[in-house]
Amino acid sequence: MDAATTLAISLDDVKRAAERIAPYVKRTPVLTSRTLDELSGRSLYFKAELFQATGAFKIRGACNAVFSLTEEKAARGVATHSSGNHAAALARAAQLRGIPAYVVVPSNTPEIKVDACRSYGVEPIMCEASMAAREAACALVVQDTDATFVPPYNHPLVIAGQGTIALEFLEQVPLLDALIVPVSGGGMISGIAVAARALKPGIKILAAEPVGRNNAADVAASLAAGRLVQLDKPETICDGLQAATGSLTWPIVQQLVDGVLTVCEEEVVAAMRLVMERMKVVVEPSGAAGVAAALGSDMRSRYPELRHVGVVLCGGNLDFGDAFWQSWLARSLTGTQNIPST
Amino acid sequence: MDAATTLAISLDDVKRAAERIAPYVKRTPVLTSRTLDELSGRSLYFKAELFQATGAFKIRGACNAVFSLTEEKAARGVATHSSGNHAAALARAAQLRGIPAYVVVPSNTPEIKVDACRSYGVEPIMCEASMAAREAACALVVQDTDATFVPPYNHPLVIAGQGTIALEFLEQVPLLDALIVPVSGGGMISGIAVAARALKPGIKILAAEPVGRNNAADVAASLAAGRLVQLDKPETICDGLQAATGSLTWPIVQQLVDGVLTVCEEEVVAAMRLVMERMKVVVEPSGAAGVAAALGSDMRSRYPELRHVGVVLCGGNLDFGDAFWQSWLARSLTGTQNIPST
Repeated sequence: MDAATTLAISLDDVKRAAERIAPYVKRTPVLTSRTLDELSGRSLYFKAELFQATGAFKIRGACNAVFSLTEEKAARGVATHSSGNHAAALARAAQLRGIPAYVVVPSNTPEIKVDACRSYGVEPIMCEASMAAREAACALVVQDTDATFVPPYNHPLVIAGQGTIALEFLEQVPLLDALIVPVSGGGMISGIAVAARALKPGIKILAAEPVGRNNAADVAASLAAGRLVQLDKPETICDGLQAATGSLTWPIVQQLVDGVLTVCEEEVVAAMRLVMERMKVVVEPSGAAGVAAALGSDMRSRYPELRHVGVVLCGGNLDFGDAFWQSWLARSLTGTQNIPST
Repeated sequence: MDAATTLAISLDDVKRAAERIAPYVKRTPVLTSRTLDELSGRSLYFKAELFQATGAFKIRGACNAVFSLTEEKAARGVATHSSGNHAAALARAAQLRGIPAYVVVPSNTPEIKVDACRSYGVEPIMCEASMAAREAACALVVQDTDATFVPPYNHPLVIAGQGTIALEFLEQVPLLDALIVPVSGGGMISGIAVAARALKPGIKILAAEPVGRNNAADVAASLAAGRLVQLDKPETICDGLQAATGSLTWPIVQQLVDGVLTVCEEEVVAAMRLVMERMKVVVEPSGAAGVAAALGSDMRSRYPELRHVGVVLCGGNLDFGDAFWQSWLARSLTGTQNIPST
């Protein structure tokens, strides 16, 4: 199989994406933490995409797709379905170009992500929380409006846009010898893998994948089987990591990803806590999956040689929940300043 | 009154502090937020001391004091009493110099700050939550050990250390025309006021002070009265803002602070929420006080002319509380992914 002809994108596509989206996305900082270095036994570098416009990396791919459209196609708008961050990103990209966006969002999407779409001038179209319902609702919208469908990950321009993370990360920390990237549909890890491997052939690309409550780590199962394995939808608090790899992302994952680090739900929560209490940044569960993988026993036993490991903190759109804010308001009124530790 | 002879420190003291502490403290980044700019109607710049070593600005003053000691005095250790962040900072500064630290901590201190002391090798001495109990316990320790007392704010070296925030902030954002600084004992605002006013004479220095549940904004009352007014201890969720200004900080506050912006408890919680949900950084209530002040009606009505306003996000040691983490663990096990919005 000739990789050059079968992969959906190349490094040049990623470089063109970087130029195209530069006016609209942030060059996010790289964070480090003494505590997390000690816990992992290596030097960890965290690419803080939680500071990205819209609070997640998805704006990179969305802007690359939206700003590649001809004037004529753009005028008819763009449409998508997404569990949240891609929806908000496409809404924002469309707002930046001044065109309509139609976004279908499943009913189990955190409110903070639904509100984000609204803040970019788009009222989401809600649907049942199943891939079939999402696809059906989106197809109807496209039929009605003649808008261009921008899928959340299975599209060359989207993959190339997400790959710009790797260009920045390797410029910021040239000595990286591995990257840990949360995987769901595979758009982010595919773009990053193509760009990083072209720039630094020896770099290891590792996927962080939640097993969820129903042991539905489909990338791990697919790589083990050597073919795309269909599993039930993962049931996980990582609401951004519930898709399956697609026809364009799977070949890249199969050829370029060196291994999958699976993480359980408790590890994801523990990683969220470490990031928020020690690094002082807000991370959503999907964003913490890479941190959980970096600190897990799998990483320790399988990759002891890796010294400088980059981890993508891919999003920070955490719904703290009304209960959390109400507890602070209650404390402010009643004077219970301290939460006793058990 | 001759300011040059009566103020506890000068710009030169702050510059010397900056050199002395440079190896031990971080040059913290300045953050911006489109959303907060829109809400405030100005350009806001946030000095992210929540990313500072120990999670708060206090390490600046503590390091300046600890690294100014002679070898002989240093060997006997340092002691203090503090509601938390200064305690952890002194513990860390002592650890960096390899000397003992004795810290007295009131019983209402958030557990995360008590744990921080322990992480720097110091077991805090707990006492009742009153200034008298704190001072008594600390005096006993000093008598027993001959350690040097490093007060949380009323000390020239501590004030000068905190002032280094202003040197960095004005280098990072030269066009600032005002600084909003949370005030408690006044160490941070005094150091910042001396340095900033010397570097940029026209800059406005504004204090952010919580009125608490018992309307105990003593700096506002003192400035209004033209003399140091003693009020009851403020009862506020801003656990780091419960001290009164001291003999060294009050004269600086009186001469150099242009105004006090008082904030109520609900405004502090709303500011925490904005910072954490929109800016994606973790801020403790005391750290959010300046944000609340920048967004408040007082600021809008009294200072409409200020365009580029710096706000010190002074600390990020937030105790999320066991209930918060348990709710995430419960969701990870039961599959209730979404917190319904009311």
